[in-house]
Formats: sequence, structure tokens, C-alpha cells
Amino acid sequence: MSNTVLDMAGPCGTPMNESGPDPFESLAEKYERIVALQDTQELLAWDQQVMMPEGGTPARSKQRSTISALEHDLVTDPDLADQLDSLEDRNLDLEQSAVVREIRRIQRRQNAVPRDLIEARSETSSEALEVWKEARSAEDFSIFAPILDRQVTLAREYAEAIDPDRDPYAVLFEEYEPFLGLETADRILSELKDALVPRIEAIRNSDRSHPSPFEDPVSESVQEELARDALDFLGYDWDRGRLDTAPHPFSTGNQFDARVTTRFDEDEPLSALLSTIHEFGHARYTLGLPSEAYGSPLGQHRGLTVHESQSRLWENHVGRSRSFWEYFVDRVAKRVPAIENTAAEDLYRAVNRVDPNSLIRVEADELTYHLHIVLRYEIERELIAGNLDAAEVPAMWNDKMAEYLGIRPESPSEGALQDIHWSHGNFGYFPTYSLGSVLSAQLYDAAAADIGGLEEKIAAGNTTPLAEWLESTIHQHGCRYRTGDLIERATGQELTATPFIEYLDEKYGDLYGI
Amino acid sequence: MSNTVLDMAGPCGTPMNESGPDPFESLAEKYERIVALQDTQELLAWDQQVMMPEGGTPARSKQRSTISALEHDLVTDPDLADQLDSLEDRNLDLEQSAVVREIRRIQRRQNAVPRDLIEARSETSSEALEVWKEARSAEDFSIFAPILDRQVTLAREYAEAIDPDRDPYAVLFEEYEPFLGLETADRILSELKDALVPRIEAIRNSDRSHPSPFEDPVSESVQEELARDALDFLGYDWDRGRLDTAPHPFSTGNQFDARVTTRFDEDEPLSALLSTIHEFGHARYTLGLPSEAYGSPLGQHRGLTVHESQSRLWENHVGRSRSFWEYFVDRVAKRVPAIENTAAEDLYRAVNRVDPNSLIRVEADELTYHLHIVLRYEIERELIAGNLDAAEVPAMWNDKMAEYLGIRPESPSEGALQDIHWSHGNFGYFPTYSLGSVLSAQLYDAAAADIGGLEEKIAAGNTTPLAEWLESTIHQHGCRYRTGDLIERATGQELTATPFIEYLDEKYGDLYGI
Repeated sequence: MSNTVLDMAGPCGTPMNESGPDPFESLAEKYERIVALQDTQELLAWDQQVMMPEGGTPARSKQRSTISALEHDLVTDPDLADQLDSLEDRNLDLEQSAVVREIRRIQRRQNAVPRDLIEARSETSSEALEVWKEARSAEDFSIFAPILDRQVTLAREYAEAIDPDRDPYAVLFEEYEPFLGLETADRILSELKDALVPRIEAIRNSDRSHPSPFEDPVSESVQEELARDALDFLGYDWDRGRLDTAPHPFSTGNQFDARVTTRFDEDEPLSALLSTIHEFGHARYTLGLPSEAYGSPLGQHRGLTVHESQSRLWENHVGRSRSFWEYFVDRVAKRVPAIENTAAEDLYRAVNRVDPNSLIRVEADELTYHLHIVLRYEIERELIAGNLDAAEVPAMWNDKMAEYLGIRPESPSEGALQDIHWSHGNFGYFPTYSLGSVLSAQLYDAAAADIGGLEEKIAAGNTTPLAEWLESTIHQHGCRYRTGDLIERATGQELTATPFIEYLDEKYGDLYGI
Repeated sequence: MSNTVLDMAGPCGTPMNESGPDPFESLAEKYERIVALQDTQELLAWDQQVMMPEGGTPARSKQRSTISALEHDLVTDPDLADQLDSLEDRNLDLEQSAVVREIRRIQRRQNAVPRDLIEARSETSSEALEVWKEARSAEDFSIFAPILDRQVTLAREYAEAIDPDRDPYAVLFEEYEPFLGLETADRILSELKDALVPRIEAIRNSDRSHPSPFEDPVSESVQEELARDALDFLGYDWDRGRLDTAPHPFSTGNQFDARVTTRFDEDEPLSALLSTIHEFGHARYTLGLPSEAYGSPLGQHRGLTVHESQSRLWENHVGRSRSFWEYFVDRVAKRVPAIENTAAEDLYRAVNRVDPNSLIRVEADELTYHLHIVLRYEIERELIAGNLDAAEVPAMWNDKMAEYLGIRPESPSEGALQDIHWSHGNFGYFPTYSLGSVLSAQLYDAAAADIGGLEEKIAAGNTTPLAEWLESTIHQHGCRYRTGDLIERATGQELTATPFIEYLDEKYGDLYGI
């Protein structure tokens, strides 16, 4: 071994850098372990929600906190920082630079935050989840308010540890969307608010309604068959995935194994179907990440905006399209004979029904949804800025609901206690849902421009060209580009709400005559 | 913080040991992480065999090797050795001494083995598994022989790294059964061989047969219902467990979540049922480990002999008993109407049928099984001692089959290629199967002596007294005692084959008139 070093020694007998382990290779190896731990953490969570017997919680909690602590140790290992430092002034190619940029980003964030604070956030989250459940069942926000204040304070301290000189909300937002910047989120959300409030008002005054053609309940087993039909139609790769049920649908995994979960309500068969298509969109993105880059940032997703754009594109631009229902109506009629005389057009209208009176975000349609997000975003910013106490949240919530949607919750579980996110301490997460929707319209337009006759292809049961376009334009790049660059390369412009608003105008203008 | 140390300083101002973190507590915390990683590794393996889509292998392999490397890092961390050293001369109570003894044991073994050798064994195992499959499907042992020789060499090197002065096979055996010693295994296996060869010969010459009452195939779904009935009867705690299918049945988990797998062959309904009961025995042991000791050796099982004693006790002494079938016959008749006129006695006889012509270990009955083990044990010892080349294995295998069982395999897949263990490099594992059977008879006798009317209770559907006896006598002790001490405390004597041989004589004397 030492002979090799001597053979390769440079002038004066000093070993050349090249003779040691290549620092880029060492960095890549270290990061691969981090990714393996992240994936393991995801499996522990998937199993807990889908498979684990109830009694398993105590041991599972230990397993998850151990994996989390070991991941933190690896990310904050001084050797990792040294390797990143030694690569700063090297000539790196585009991909290598991207790898260094991405690892540096998480390494800086995790090093900046004291371990005590991480543990305090994690412990408060577990506690807050229980308190949130209690407050919800008691319909009493005041039970939740004190711990929400604590979560807000901890989140602010967390942001200040990372960067004391910036708006803490902007720093928190970057946890979920690292590159677009809060000013972009702010601009898009403001455009959405301006566009949607009058349109929803117009729909409220429209005399058209689009009732569900399902008059009788549809059993879970039939709904599961339908969900599998839809996944078949979408080209889900069953050799690299599976479908299960979970109390809160989600998707998880990596490019070799990306799983989908759903849930069934016998009275709302269309809901499970669209939710399954949504989760498929996430899983399809994951499966499109380059397999040869597993363990590298080049094989990881580009943050929550892009992830959500993929789920919403498949859910709304495909699953809520006329083309989809022209093809899928026969499948539904086969599984549910009671609706065999229903036209594709009626199913299309039913899945696009707008309910301006819906108080619940996760049940909201494509229009009202974003006002639910705007409301949460505005409240979060006030909380994190220290302008609002948790106790004042319900009043602000209810006033904004009245202002934006013309309705007022009658109980906290229909209002400020409806989401789990704040109990987790996840502030800055909600905006990515709307950014994802906006991006999905922008991407769909670009795909349709590139692929001739896209809607006819979907109506004929062929979703492959769309999936392949998304794979080559978005998925295959992993974290190679920053979010904005990825969007510009794919669509020719920066993130813009215009295609989304145009899409809504065309679709809902037709559906509601507005 | 430093004030605290000064306040508690001893004479001459040196800090007292007591002022720092308690070394026993630190050791316990470190070990808890190791256990959490072991459990995580088990979940990754369970998922891979039960749930994972086929394409998931590349990522799963990385996850498993990462967890394995991190576990190795924790076990070989010099801080752990220091803490163990500092505890050696302390006054520890019985439980603390046991904790130190058990952690020291794995810490010494893992430190003794060079990392290169661990990786070579792991890589050779993956490769050997593929070669073994290929050799099996080609029915050609010579394809497998070279890599088996490599596995033998690596296993020998591994044993020599741990202790160069002892019989390497004895060192390998301790990997699975740490305390009974190879001389005990040798004594027991030799007693079994002497006892079983003439008895099997007598059964071969008996004119009695006990055919299965199942003339028609039983569907997988009905068999699954039966398996669940059996688990209900046995008192399996569904809040801490689940039943799934896997290509090779196994059980896995911890005291909060111990899962069972099985497989169904429509032509062999009794086989799945007994296999499920066997795996229940493993899971019941796991669920009986003390929950408050999770993360400590006191909450872990006492090696493979004791583990196998639990599975075999439930499988053979319960599942193959008259009492069980007196109770369970009605359940079977309810699920399989075709046998509703079958007597409990006929089912009892059918599950205890002896087939001296069976060449396959995993299909063998309670008698011939142990000659399959003796044969493997004798061949393994010759291989590890360097007295036998892998290429010579099939001839020795076939000769021993003829000598012990009076039959000769016609193809390698019925002979020396039937087991997966050697491809994994697991030498020294097989004897624990027979030791477990022997111990199960010894334990059952002790339980029956302590519990009045045990068989009547089982026949009445009440297995609780037996389960509780095993829990308080074996399960609750985790690794508190060495194997031999645990056995003596539970049964009043050291491990002995006598109860097992007496049990066989009584049972099979009656069944075959021998």
C-alpha cells in the first residue's frame, strides 16, 4: 500500500493529493450513508402508519430517534465539513458542484442548530400532537394555544440559529422550498388571492351544480379495485411500488421502491380515487429519479414545490380532466354497475364540483383550496413575526374565512384546529402546496406544447408520453439545478401563476358559466 | 456545570468518579442505540421478505449495509470498551453484572474481527446465495463447491480472529449458543443419534400408517383463517403482532411488536398450521421479554437454543398433542366441512406421521429431523477442521443418509444443496435446532409438574397457564442468566436428552407399536 503512494509521489517526494482518497469520492460515500438513513427512517414511518400493530409504538419511537440522532451525527461530522471545505476551490463539473451545494446546505443548517434545540422541538412536537388531539375532541382552542406559542418560539429560535439576520419565516420556508425565496411565494399567493376571491364569489352565485352520480355507497373492496385500475392506467410500476391504506394518505420511498397509500370512504368514492392519483404523482416523481444516482443529491427530489407540482399535475390536470374520464368511465361502470348509464361528462363535472361552503382544506376544490392556504400563510407570518399570540388565532382565522370565502367555522375542529401541521411545528410548509399547483399548470402547458395531441392520447388511455416528458424534464435531474433553474429549463419562464389562473378560468368558466 | 464537579471533589481536589455521568448509565444508553439499530435491521429484513416490491433490492441493500456498518461502529467504539473496563472492578448487582457480561461478549467478538474480514464474509454471502440458487437449479453441486470452500475458509479465519487457541467450530457455535459449550452439543447429538437410528428403523418396519384426512386441497384463504384460529387459541396478542405470508416462514420483532409469517401449500394444510404454531412460539418468547428492559440485554433473548425450545414446545408438545386436537378439531371442521366427520384422534395421528423416506430436513418429522441435523453437524465439523473439501460433501452426505436413515438422495437439491445456511456462511447454527427440541421436552415436563392438569387445560382451550409459566420461568429473564443457569433454574437439572427421548418413546411407541 505504501509503495503505491511512493510510486505516485510528486516532485520532492511529497505525496500528491491524487494519491490519497479523492475528497469528492469520500464526500459521496459519506452522503450515501446519510441517504440510506433517511430512507430507513421513511420505512420506519411507513410501517408505523401502514403495518405496525398498535402496541409497537414504544420500541418504534426509540428506533426512530436513534436513526435521527445518527443521521444528525453524520451530517454534523467535522470530517464532512472538512471535505466540503477542501472541495470549495476545486474545479468541479456541474454535477459535482450541485452535489457539494446540496450537501453544504443541509450541513450548514444542521450545524447551526444546537442539539438542545433540536431535541426541544422534537419533544414539543410529540407533546403538541397529543394536546392538539385533546383540544380537537374538546373543541377548545385554548387547550392548544400555550403549546402552539411554545412551538412558535422554538421555530423562531431555530430560524435565528440558522440565520439571525433574516426574516425567520423566510428561513423556515427554505426548509421545504430551498431556492424560490419567500418573495416568490408572497407574490404568487397574493396573485392567487386577488384572482380567486371574485371567481369563487361568482361561482357561489351561479345556479349550476354538479352532483355526484354515486347515489349508493361503494364498498372499500370495489374502491380498491378502482384505485388499482387508475394506477394501471397511469402506468404505475408495480415492481417498484405497492398500494396500501393509511389513516392519512401519503407516498414514500426511493427510485427503487416508491409506495402509495390511500383511504376509502364508502360515501365518497371519487375522493379516494383522486387522492390515489395525487399520491401516484408523488411516487412517479420518486420513481423517475435517476437510479444510478441513488445515495447522491442528484438522485433526490428538488424540494416540496416541485414534488407537489407532480402530484397536482396528475391529480388535477389528468385525473380531473375530460380526457381521463372519457377513458376511465368504462372502468368505473364495470366496477360499479349502478352508474353504467352515467356519461363521462357527468363524472368530469362531479370531480370538479366547487363547494364555496367547504370549511376543510383537505376536502377543498381546486379554487377554494388556495384561499385556505393564503389564510394559513398570513397567520403563520404574524405568529413567527411575534405580532400574534396563539390565543388570537381562532378570531383571525374566522375573520379571514369570512373575508375570503364568505363563510365562518362554527367549531375549532372546522377552523383553526383542523390541520396537524402546527402541532408538528411545521411553519412555512403550507405555501408549497399552492406553489406546487401553480407550477403544475405551468408544466402541463409546456408538456402539451411539446407533445402533440396530449389530451387525445390520455383519452385513448396512453399516459406514457406525459410521464416520459416529466421524467426527462424534471425527475431525471434530481437536485442538479436550483428550483428556479429547473422550472425555467422545463418551461422557458420563471414560476408564474398565469397559466394556473388561465386554466381555472377556462375550466370553471365552462363548468359554472362565470 | 464545573461548579458541580468542584463541589463534589474528593480529597486533594480530584473529582470523584461519582460526579461524572454514571458509567453504567452511559453504557446502557450506548447499548440502547445498538439494540434500536438491530431492531431496525430486523424491520428492513421483514419488509424485504414480506412487503417490499421486487425492484426495491438495490436501495434496500444499501440501507441494510449502512445500518450494519453503523452498528459495528457503535459496538467497536473505544468509549464503549472504556466504559466496560471501568465497570469491571465495580460492585455491581446481579442484573448489572449480566448487562456488562453480555455487552462485553459482543464487544470482544466484534473488536477481534478485522473489518476486511467482515466485509469479505458479507460479500461472499451475497455471491454464494446466487451461486447456490444456480447450482440447485442446475442440480450440480460442483458449481457451489468452490464458493463453499471460500465460505469455510472465511468462517475459520473469523473463528481464529476471535480465539486462535480454540477449536474454530466451538467458537462459531458460540455465535448462536453462547454458553452451553460445544461438548454439550456433541453429547446431546450423540445421544440422539444412538437413540433415534434404531427407533426409526422400527417405525420403517411397522405396518401402521397415519394418512392425512385432507383428501382435497384447502384454499389459502381457508388456511389463513385456520392459522388465525390457532393463534387465537394460543393467545397471540394481536395488538403486538401480525400474521403475513413469506416464502420462508420466520418470526421477528421485539417485546412491543413480534410478528409471525407463514406460507400455504393447498395440498398440505397441516403443514402451514404447524409452521404457524412454531413461529408463534418464537414470537411468544419475544413478547414475554420484559418491556421495561427494552434496549438492554435484560430485554433480549437468551440465544438460539432457548429460542428454538420455545418454538418447538408450542409446535410439538402443544400443536402435535392429543389435547390440542381434542380442542381444535371443531375449528377445523367448521372451516373445512369435508372433514367434519374426522375424529380428533385421526388429526392427532396425521400430524405425527413419521416418514423415514423423507430426504428434506424442513419436511421431516420429530424423529428423523435430528438425524438430518447430526449429518450436517458432522459434515460441518470436518469442513471447518480442514479434513474435508467442499467437493467431497455430496458423497459424505449421501453415505450418511444411507447409514442413518436408510435412504439415498437422487439429486443434489434433495441432498447437500437443500439448505440455504451454508451459502450464508452460517456454520454452527444447525445444532441449536436439536438442542432446542431437547430443551423443549425438558421444559414441558417441568411445566406439567408445576401446573396441575396441564393437558386437560389445553384440551379445554386454555393455554394461558403454560404461556405464563414459560414467561415467568424463561422469557422474563432475558439475558440475566447464562443458558445453563437458566435451564437449571427452570427445570432443576442441566440440559439433558432424557425427557425428549422418553417423550418420543411414549408417543411413537403408542402411534407405531414400537
